[in-house]
Amino acid sequence: MVEAGRIQRGEDVQRHLRDVQALLARHRAVEELVRGQEMPRHAEVETLLHRQHVAELRKTLDVMHAADIAYILEALPPEERLFVWDLVKAERDGEILLEVSDAVRETLIESMDPNELVAAAGALDADEIADIAPDLPTEVIEDLFRSLEPEERTQLRAALSYPEDSAGALMDFDMVSVREDVTLEVVLRYLRRFDELPDHTDQIFVVDREEHLRGALPLNTLLVSDPETEVSAVMSTEVVRFQPGDKAETAAQAFERYDLVSAPVVDTQNRVLGRVTVDAVMDFIREESESELLAQAGLREEEDIFASVWDSLKNRWSWLAINLVTAFIASRVIGAFESSIEKLVALAALMPIVAGIGGNSGNQTITLIVRAMALGQMQATHARQLFRKELGVALVNGVVWGGLLGLIAWWLYASAPLGAVMMLAMVLNLLLAATMGVGIPLARTRLGGDPAVGSSVMITAVTDSGGFFIFLGLATLFQKMGWLAG
Amino acid sequence: MVEAGRIQRGEDVQRHLRDVQALLARHRAVEELVRGQEMPRHAEVETLLHRQHVAELRKTLDVMHAADIAYILEALPPEERLFVWDLVKAERDGEILLEVSDAVRETLIESMDPNELVAAAGALDADEIADIAPDLPTEVIEDLFRSLEPEERTQLRAALSYPEDSAGALMDFDMVSVREDVTLEVVLRYLRRFDELPDHTDQIFVVDREEHLRGALPLNTLLVSDPETEVSAVMSTEVVRFQPGDKAETAAQAFERYDLVSAPVVDTQNRVLGRVTVDAVMDFIREESESELLAQAGLREEEDIFASVWDSLKNRWSWLAINLVTAFIASRVIGAFESSIEKLVALAALMPIVAGIGGNSGNQTITLIVRAMALGQMQATHARQLFRKELGVALVNGVVWGGLLGLIAWWLYASAPLGAVMMLAMVLNLLLAATMGVGIPLARTRLGGDPAVGSSVMITAVTDSGGFFIFLGLATLFQKMGWLAG
Repeated sequence: MVEAGRIQRGEDVQRHLRDVQALLARHRAVEELVRGQEMPRHAEVETLLHRQHVAELRKTLDVMHAADIAYILEALPPEERLFVWDLVKAERDGEILLEVSDAVRETLIESMDPNELVAAAGALDADEIADIAPDLPTEVIEDLFRSLEPEERTQLRAALSYPEDSAGALMDFDMVSVREDVTLEVVLRYLRRFDELPDHTDQIFVVDREEHLRGALPLNTLLVSDPETEVSAVMSTEVVRFQPGDKAETAAQAFERYDLVSAPVVDTQNRVLGRVTVDAVMDFIREESESELLAQAGLREEEDIFASVWDSLKNRWSWLAINLVTAFIASRVIGAFESSIEKLVALAALMPIVAGIGGNSGNQTITLIVRAMALGQMQATHARQLFRKELGVALVNGVVWGGLLGLIAWWLYASAPLGAVMMLAMVLNLLLAATMGVGIPLARTRLGGDPAVGSSVMITAVTDSGGFFIFLGLATLFQKMGWLAG
Repeated sequence: MVEAGRIQRGEDVQRHLRDVQALLARHRAVEELVRGQEMPRHAEVETLLHRQHVAELRKTLDVMHAADIAYILEALPPEERLFVWDLVKAERDGEILLEVSDAVRETLIESMDPNELVAAAGALDADEIADIAPDLPTEVIEDLFRSLEPEERTQLRAALSYPEDSAGALMDFDMVSVREDVTLEVVLRYLRRFDELPDHTDQIFVVDREEHLRGALPLNTLLVSDPETEVSAVMSTEVVRFQPGDKAETAAQAFERYDLVSAPVVDTQNRVLGRVTVDAVMDFIREESESELLAQAGLREEEDIFASVWDSLKNRWSWLAINLVTAFIASRVIGAFESSIEKLVALAALMPIVAGIGGNSGNQTITLIVRAMALGQMQATHARQLFRKELGVALVNGVVWGGLLGLIAWWLYASAPLGAVMMLAMVLNLLLAATMGVGIPLARTRLGGDPAVGSSVMITAVTDSGGFFIFLGLATLFQKMGWLAG
């Protein structure tokens, strides 16, 4: 892979971004002048200036790392993005497409014709092609297949066959392997025949004639050991390995726990298929956490901040629709108590507090439980213990905050019974929130679902409708008993 | 660092966790028998059984990786956790303390006496001691300082001086460096004198006599080049380097962008102080994203799921208090319109929908903007463009969903004007949410704050109070004009 000059520090990338933007601004200014020109003889000067800016910009881009160009493309609005994209050398298109976010990649690919795409993707390794394949038109993929060497074709086919969240999807096919019956001296001589080793080679795989994994020879060991030693004498046999069908999350956890740089991927016969490296894992972790954060805010996927209104709507509507339904249900719960509110309108002002605090408290509980479950640290045997603890927390919070709000309600509306309803409702709604905060994820896991998806919507739906029901129900009861105005 | 047998697969760790729990369960059963024993002659048998279980457990723990023991400790409730912790070999205490979460580390440290702690921490490197130092009692740190070698003492003092979110805090002091005027053959011979190279050594730093960084020699290059070559001829001089005061986030972004495994940390004179490795960066990324997720749910920090009720309350109260205040304000807004609600109680049932959908939509916007800002991709020059886009999305959503709800309100309460109020209020509240979703982060950055902190609380506060005000205000207006019942 081409690797242009690296940028030393984050500030430099920011400076480059500003440079590019300044050049673009000057370019725009010149263009407007040229377009609206009244004095034709100025045109030549302007065109010259224009050409200078473009040449300068191209030079800046040429020395930048692909990841930095990707970053800058993401930060630019559509027209400027495409203008810069056209200035990038064609042979670097592939590596940059690999680095940009999915949303921005779509906009770039749309601007390219099939031939350009085949050329750009053709410069990549099979595993890299597989990463951008979902965004490529089918015809481009077909052309690509035809243009590849047979070995790469097999690799691409394999890479495309692994689901996105599997270890296979993180895998690349670059690796060095040796036999166990040679000396380290031979290994050293063998390595010298390479132009360079694959990135992130921290260990060499030791395989037999049928490519079965026998062990791994860390470069660390290779370098400190006596060259006369045989590989088998110093290789490590306890190698953390994955199968392509393993969950990518499992692989990521292993990389974190055991501080790995690379790990082999083997088939069911323990034959080496490829390897996973830490850079792929780190990208995976970042993407996962991003999409979790976005999902919590109700965004289906990463969004190009300059996306069209239409694309944004598509990304956001489903969450709004779900919330509309839950809000509507909560509204009907209130509707059922309209006569109680008519008698004591203060209820309308106080009820959102009960629902809101219940939602916050429930979200705290469910987030902790879902997280513990994701780590596999939440055992069904401890469910009772956790219920007890969360109910304890809810009870204290309910009595303290509910008591405070009860006092305020009493003081505001000069009604002690109303204060009592407020406090009781708070306690009950927080208890409900705690029960559901533990119960919903447990139930969903038991039913085979992913407890993380939409947990926040569910708990909020329960504490909203539940909070209104508890508060208004209690108030109606108090009214019926003659304790409360109405 | 001691490194015990590695676990191959995630499933194996889960199996180990189940094994430990099964052993603990049997152990508990025996203990209860012994405690409640009626037949004294059985005691010996029970004690024997008990001893067997403990021995078995100890053996299981001995072969486990420190990170896996840490994982298991986190998954156990307090008494069992401490029981297992006592079975762990004392010399491994340090590395395990390093691996457990902050919350669980506190519980383990509480159970140890100062001498044990000094011994445990003493087995660690200076940068590792600095990582757990915030949880250690002051006397232990003082004792530790006295027990260290002068060089390590200086390192520890340096490591403790860097703020938690700086590149310095990620730094370790293990590294190999060579001079540029020697041949690779000399380097290879020099490396053979080591027992092992520091973990994650993918490059050797090239320094001059005063430790100024001259370049780096990747092991990759060392292995493929002719041993007769001089270091200066093949070393790379464009080395991504950090200063200890750089933001850890900046370092993490550089590791991701440039796919680094290690990078030198230098002082202002470009003298090498230490290095940052990818494992520290990966832990940092995971911790950051965890704490972002937790913060979004209103949790101050990571919580031991078996924390006491009291500890949980401390972790959660501040968020609840803030929300109580914002909910109270929203409640007063409603209170101001009590007479309008009294005249048309349907308003009480419909108002939470307007506020709720506004909050969801605002959270979508603010999450995207905050994220773009965190990546430095959001330029003030694009603010107008983003405002326009978000207002466009809000307008469409408002008209579509508001229109739908307006129709439903009309149908439910047989009042077209009420439907109109509903739709108008939705449009206006979504426009408010969009404006604030872009405006709040922009304003906070301009004021020098971190736009991420509490963004969700702020936007929800605005859309709640604002939503109630808009909806009830419009309804009151319609009532005054005689268009709406009242």
